[in-house]
Amino acid sequence: MSIDVSIPPPDESAMEAARARQDRLTKPAGSLGRLEELSIRLAGITGRLDPPLQHRVVFTLAADHGVAHEGVSAYPPEVTPQMVLNFLHGGAAINVLAKVARARVVIADLGVDADLPSHPDLHALKVRRGTASITRGPAMSLAEARLAIDHGRQLVAGEVVRGLDVVMTGDMGIGNTTAAAAVISALTGLDPNAVVGRGTGVDDAGLERKRQAVRRALEVNAERIAQGPIEALAAVGGLEIAGLTGAILEAANRRIPVVIDGFISGAAALAAARIAPASVGYMIASHRSQELGHAAALEELGLEPLLDLELRLGEGTGAVLALFLLDAAVAILNQMATFDQAGVSEREGSSSLIID
Amino acid sequence: MSIDVSIPPPDESAMEAARARQDRLTKPAGSLGRLEELSIRLAGITGRLDPPLQHRVVFTLAADHGVAHEGVSAYPPEVTPQMVLNFLHGGAAINVLAKVARARVVIADLGVDADLPSHPDLHALKVRRGTASITRGPAMSLAEARLAIDHGRQLVAGEVVRGLDVVMTGDMGIGNTTAAAAVISALTGLDPNAVVGRGTGVDDAGLERKRQAVRRALEVNAERIAQGPIEALAAVGGLEIAGLTGAILEAANRRIPVVIDGFISGAAALAAARIAPASVGYMIASHRSQELGHAAALEELGLEPLLDLELRLGEGTGAVLALFLLDAAVAILNQMATFDQAGVSEREGSSSLIID
Repeated sequence: MSIDVSIPPPDESAMEAARARQDRLTKPAGSLGRLEELSIRLAGITGRLDPPLQHRVVFTLAADHGVAHEGVSAYPPEVTPQMVLNFLHGGAAINVLAKVARARVVIADLGVDADLPSHPDLHALKVRRGTASITRGPAMSLAEARLAIDHGRQLVAGEVVRGLDVVMTGDMGIGNTTAAAAVISALTGLDPNAVVGRGTGVDDAGLERKRQAVRRALEVNAERIAQGPIEALAAVGGLEIAGLTGAILEAANRRIPVVIDGFISGAAALAAARIAPASVGYMIASHRSQELGHAAALEELGLEPLLDLELRLGEGTGAVLALFLLDAAVAILNQMATFDQAGVSEREGSSSLIID
Repeated sequence: MSIDVSIPPPDESAMEAARARQDRLTKPAGSLGRLEELSIRLAGITGRLDPPLQHRVVFTLAADHGVAHEGVSAYPPEVTPQMVLNFLHGGAAINVLAKVARARVVIADLGVDADLPSHPDLHALKVRRGTASITRGPAMSLAEARLAIDHGRQLVAGEVVRGLDVVMTGDMGIGNTTAAAAVISALTGLDPNAVVGRGTGVDDAGLERKRQAVRRALEVNAERIAQGPIEALAAVGGLEIAGLTGAILEAANRRIPVVIDGFISGAAALAAARIAPASVGYMIASHRSQELGHAAALEELGLEPLLDLELRLGEGTGAVLALFLLDAAVAILNQMATFDQAGVSEREGSSSLIID
C-alpha cells in the first residue's frame, strides 16, 4: 500500500549558494554553527535564500487510544477532550507559545472518544471514537489509517490558501506515548525497553505496564507490522499519529519546511520517512524530548534536534519554540554584511583587504 | 580591593509562588522542563511572576589585546575597529539577531587600538589603546581595570532611563579568547590545556601558541593574580572583559536579569562571581559555546546553559538568541489556564474534577 506523493530532493544549487554566502558574511566561517546549517537546509527545502516565514502553522491533532484504559498513563482518558476544549479557549501551552512565536494553531479531532461541540476553530475529522487497544489486535483498519493520513494531508492543503510557509506538528491524546513507542519499535526493530518512557509521568509500575503493553502489541500485530509502514501505523499507531504522518508528507510534497515536535511527532515522522524516504529532506527536528525513545527515532531519521530543553509535553510546543531559530537563520543569511561590503579583513593568509 | 555593590539574594517567596503556579497549569508538572525553571528563576530575580521583558539591551563592548600580535588569532587586530564600524552600520550578526529578537544594541569602545570616528551610537569609553601583552606583564594597571569595570556599570545605569528589563553581554576584540582563557585559568586554577580553545579558528600551531601564551601570562603575573579577582582581571584580562564584569555586577545590583553570552562573557561572569558571589543569582547562561573552556567556566558558576547551537562568535549573539526563551517562560507562567480554570482533570489519584 502506498501514498501518492512526489517529493523532489532538496535544491542543491540553492544550498550551494547559501553555503557560499555564509562564508562571505562578516564572521569567522562556521562560527554561527547550527544557524548556518539551518539556513542552508531551508534554502534546499524552499529553493530560495530568503524563504518567507510569515505564515507558520502548528497542526495539533487529537485522538484517543484504547490502550489508555490499561493503566499506561498518569492521566485519565477524559483529559483528551478536556484539553481540546482548552486549546479552543486558548488556555493551553501551545496557544501561549504560538502567540509568542506569531504562529497559527490548527486544532483537529482525528478520533477523540467524546462528542466535542462544534466550534469554528475545530476541524471535526473524527475517523472513529478512539482506537481499539493495540494489545488485543489492530488499533484501526487499514482504511481508517488511510483516511486519517488523508485528513492530515487535507489539513495542510487547506491552510495553503490562507498562506503557509512553515508547517509544525503537534499532538494531544492520553495514551499516545504508548502508541508512539509501539510505532517506533515496529518500524525500527528496537526493543520496547529502549523506546518506552514515562510519558506524562507514570511511576515504575506504570512504566512496566507500558513496556508490557508495547511488547504484547508487537506480538499480536506482528503479521500486519511486517506488511509495511501504513499497515504498522494501522496496527499499533493512533489516529493523530497517522494524521501527522499525512501532514508531514503533504508539507514535503509541497516543499514546505516541516518542523517536527517531540516523541509522538517523531513516530509520525518515522512513518512518513518509511512511506516516502525523500520526505526526511523537508523535516527539521525542533527538540530532543525527555521521552526515552525520542533520541532513537531522531537518530533513525538522521536528524539532529535544535533544542534540548527537557520538554515532554507535546501539543507542538517544542516545534513552535524552534521557530525563532528559523527566523534567526534566515535573517543572518540575508541581512548580514559581507566582508567586501563592510571592509572587514578576512583571515590571515586569505586574500583580503587588510587595512594596515 | 573591592567593588561597591549590594546584591540581595533572589526573592524566595516569588520563586515559591511561581513554582506553585507552574504546578497548577494545564500540563503535567515539570513537562516544560527548562522553561518552568527559567520562569521561577526570573521570578526570584525580579520579585514578580510577570517581569517585563520589553526593554532588552545587549551591551557589546570592544577592546584590543596586546597578545593579539603574538600569533594567537586567525584574524589580524585591525578587525576589531573594522567590526565596531560594522556594528555601527548594522551589518554584523549581533545587529541582525538583535533586530529579530527586538533588542537594542549598545556599542562601546573600552579600549580599541585605533581612533574610531565619533558616532551617535558609539560610547567612547577608551581606557587605553589596547592592553599590554599579558605574556610580558600585566595587561593593564589596577586603576585602569577599575575604570573599565566602572564604565561597564555606568553603561548599564545609563540605559535604565530609556527602560532596561534585561541586560545581555557581548564582546568584540581580536585576541580576546586568549585573555578570557587566562582569566578563567587564573580564577579557577584549571590548566590552560583544559581552557584554551581555537577561538575564531586557529590551526594546531596557533593553538599551541595560545596555550604557551596563557601559560606564560599566568607565570609572569602569578603574584598579581594571587591578590584577588580584580587584580587578576588587570593582570591577564582585557578592557572589554573588565567592562562586562562591571555591567554584570550593575545588573545584579539593580535586580535586572543578565543573560550571559559565550566564552568571553563567561570569563567576565566568573570574575563578577568572585567579586560578588551573590551576582550569580542574577545570571542566566544563554548557550554553551564551542570554545573549549566555556563549559568549565559555566560549571564553576553552577549555571546550565539554555542553548547548545555550536556557536563561537561572541558579540552577544548567543545571549540575544536566548531571549525568546525568556519570553516563552514568562508567557507560560502568566497566560496558561490552570486545571481549575479549564476544567481539566489532574493526575489519577490526585484530587481532581474528572468529567465522567
